[in-house]
Amino acid sequence: MNFMEIAENRQSCRSYDSREVEPEKLQAILEAARLSPSACNGQPYRLTVCRGATAKAVAAATQSMGMNKFASQAPILIVVSEMPYVKSAALGAKLKGNDYRSIDIGIATAYLTAEATAQGLSTCILGWLDDKKIREICGLEHPVRLVITLGYAKEETIRPKKRKDLSELVKEI
Amino acid sequence: MNFMEIAENRQSCRSYDSREVEPEKLQAILEAARLSPSACNGQPYRLTVCRGATAKAVAAATQSMGMNKFASQAPILIVVSEMPYVKSAALGAKLKGNDYRSIDIGIATAYLTAEATAQGLSTCILGWLDDKKIREICGLEHPVRLVITLGYAKEETIRPKKRKDLSELVKEI
Repeated sequence: MNFMEIAENRQSCRSYDSREVEPEKLQAILEAARLSPSACNGQPYRLTVCRGATAKAVAAATQSMGMNKFASQAPILIVVSEMPYVKSAALGAKLKGNDYRSIDIGIATAYLTAEATAQGLSTCILGWLDDKKIREICGLEHPVRLVITLGYAKEETIRPKKRKDLSELVKEI
Repeated sequence: MNFMEIAENRQSCRSYDSREVEPEKLQAILEAARLSPSACNGQPYRLTVCRGATAKAVAAATQSMGMNKFASQAPILIVVSEMPYVKSAALGAKLKGNDYRSIDIGIATAYLTAEATAQGLSTCILGWLDDKKIREICGLEHPVRLVITLGYAKEETIRPKKRKDLSELVKEI
């Protein structure tokens, strides 16, 4: 699958079947995230892979106000937490008033979910979550920024993507 | 090129030759960014493609304190600026204290640079920049978060990647 096919096929999956994720596929997905670039090569995040009862507890912590009910179906939930900056990135962020860590987390998440798609797996990126609860469940000191559901889709129809036109997103000068 | 090859080959390029980027390659690269997922599908960013004198002026605005001298060589600079949230993402961000826009910008940047690698082009993601100057040069109202250099590498040797071991980045529970 080339990258444009990945970009076209990757979609938020909200229905998972009971098939387990093969360990070698999970390994490839985590390795892709590991290879992603970050400001000053700081890799300011940690990935916590949750299965079984832990996954169910993390899923519950993304489900307030009726959100993310499907998360309980996914065999794996990956919790993305934010680590402190390395010194050089901290200095740059302070001098430039920019939040490089969040950008780095976005890049790593894109790599992780792209490789999942390449492996025939499906994902959903959840930002609606209870940071405090998930930290307790997973024993994490640092803020939880995202939870990624990972598994095989129950239904694999690719939905047409709704996106802004390029003319709205891009200006050439 | 499969995604793992993209992840392995993509590296910060700090030396560009004078070859121009073919319009159809640029188009594919922008299209990949357009297809990237974002919180509530808000796509809270704009991409400003700069060439010629404008690119040189933007490059200069990334070069304080001796940084990013190579940026002047790149035939194209893409300025990534942040737009206001869509309402649903704004509400989620407020309730959850999370900065989804920066994550979305990271995801779009990963898609853009991955497709550039697939197209045989090279990139560097610059976070060290003078927001005010670049807004003036490009006529942008909203904050500039990143500048991406894009072009053909003068020297295409793939450097070995230094990254944290998976055992440090990942915890399985």
